[in-house]
Amino acid sequence: MAIIGLDIGGTKLLGAVFNAQGQIIDKEKNSSKAEEGFDTVMKQIHKTIDSLVERNQIKIEGIGIGVPGTVNQDGYVVFTPNLPLGDYDLAKDLSTRYGVPVRVGNDVNLGTYGEYMELGITHKNVIGLFPGTGLGGGIIINRNLYIGQGTAGELGHIVVQKDGVDCNCGNRGCLESYASKKGIIKYIQNQLKKKRECELSEDVLNGMIKSSKLKRAFDNNDEVVVEAMDQFKEYLGLGIGIIINIFNPDLIIIGGGIIDAFGPKLLDGIRKHATGYALPYLFDKTDVLSSRLGDDAVIFGGYHLIKSS
Amino acid sequence: MAIIGLDIGGTKLLGAVFNAQGQIIDKEKNSSKAEEGFDTVMKQIHKTIDSLVERNQIKIEGIGIGVPGTVNQDGYVVFTPNLPLGDYDLAKDLSTRYGVPVRVGNDVNLGTYGEYMELGITHKNVIGLFPGTGLGGGIIINRNLYIGQGTAGELGHIVVQKDGVDCNCGNRGCLESYASKKGIIKYIQNQLKKKRECELSEDVLNGMIKSSKLKRAFDNNDEVVVEAMDQFKEYLGLGIGIIINIFNPDLIIIGGGIIDAFGPKLLDGIRKHATGYALPYLFDKTDVLSSRLGDDAVIFGGYHLIKSS
Repeated sequence: MAIIGLDIGGTKLLGAVFNAQGQIIDKEKNSSKAEEGFDTVMKQIHKTIDSLVERNQIKIEGIGIGVPGTVNQDGYVVFTPNLPLGDYDLAKDLSTRYGVPVRVGNDVNLGTYGEYMELGITHKNVIGLFPGTGLGGGIIINRNLYIGQGTAGELGHIVVQKDGVDCNCGNRGCLESYASKKGIIKYIQNQLKKKRECELSEDVLNGMIKSSKLKRAFDNNDEVVVEAMDQFKEYLGLGIGIIINIFNPDLIIIGGGIIDAFGPKLLDGIRKHATGYALPYLFDKTDVLSSRLGDDAVIFGGYHLIKSS
Repeated sequence: MAIIGLDIGGTKLLGAVFNAQGQIIDKEKNSSKAEEGFDTVMKQIHKTIDSLVERNQIKIEGIGIGVPGTVNQDGYVVFTPNLPLGDYDLAKDLSTRYGVPVRVGNDVNLGTYGEYMELGITHKNVIGLFPGTGLGGGIIINRNLYIGQGTAGELGHIVVQKDGVDCNCGNRGCLESYASKKGIIKYIQNQLKKKRECELSEDVLNGMIKSSKLKRAFDNNDEVVVEAMDQFKEYLGLGIGIIINIFNPDLIIIGGGIIDAFGPKLLDGIRKHATGYALPYLFDKTDVLSSRLGDDAVIFGGYHLIKSS
């Protein structure tokens, strides 16, 4: 018997087959083709799962799925800003099609759960914070994934600057508007308007920077990029401080493309900033680690979600 | 068999005896005499418990205690800013003296638990937010009090205005600096400096306002007080928005002296502000209720803590 983990992203679909020992025995990657609409995305999802099943000649016992958006407790997808899957009973659809239990959760919730379970640690209460294009979070309480009514951990939408810059969510001053690639891009854009130079000006105009390119510009001591990364560190430290004061957790896991590209030194800088925003006694008791699974975090989370249910 | 609930405050001690049905059968109130130091405070605690035991001729099965500060998982009091009880193993001391299990928690954590348990509801995940002199919080996850490593829910120290006004905790821009009596007083003080008039000017100079007096000044349409309450509502709404985005909870309970004095209309105003800070779908699914137990919330929490252990 095998379990399928699936990570449905705005651009890519990543599926994997897990064996009884929880190891990945096969993977399948496809474009999600979000721009072609609902029917095409569903076809891509079916294709990814079908390929894995057929290629490996397996009988599956369940499918665990992460989507980039809001989900309710029953796996009904409520809202996915970058994917035409909102307002759809994805869990029921796939459960009917494949005749197995299907669980659907927010991708970063699942990614945090995957990281936590694969760390194999005894910590009970763990928070995940994943800055990427935006900023997502996940919450482990008493060794279980905490989802509230379906999608908890929208840590990127904690307002840290009342009446601050506009956020895509409709509100203002959200943590995500500073501590994510969106925030970095916005910072550089503002500097370009002031006629300053930056080696990432073209990427910024296109609205997207690869983490590796960001790291290269930083290593080249591009002044604007260094400043943008200072703001990123400062605000991610602020986010960590807030999380510590709220959860008094055992551990905070920080992950995502930027962290992976910049390595452990970045995390040290972020930790230092966090001291200015957390109650000191609580801060001293909290471990901060970087994630380890990279792009596989969500599919591992999907596997563990099925395994634990 | 009976259980004792004890609320140790900076000025008052409130103890109560609960019978097997969870009803209060006797109460005892004393000054905590914080200004006289550790030994005197301990004597006052002993006196409160002894009086309740002797007067009611009871055999107790446990004591549940709330203190205004930071506590670890074993009931060791780490830090109490307004009481000389920090760095002391209060649970062990009282457990040895009375020969029964003693549990010690943060007072607002316990207050939230008390309110939750006495509501008798089926909601699983509930957050309490209690603006008073400061702003404390409590977290119920999966029907249990969540304390992290001992003291979770320091919701007053969520930074909502980076580089904002100084907070007693040493950081800046904490929610408590706006959405509490401290915040209201600070607002009025700033207006008095601008030579504006306010009927609470004397109270503000003394650094404390009674909730009933605040309400009276508000009803008298004192301009500065109305503005201070607008800020209070706005920021408490912001706090609710943040809590919703993080926890996607079933219910938020709002309590404390100001809320009790102003009544349900105040809560409506706060809710309205919260819509500007929460993700809409999550906001729509969250109930907001005012607390019901008033000054008894913490002792009820102490009772339920012992009862549930």
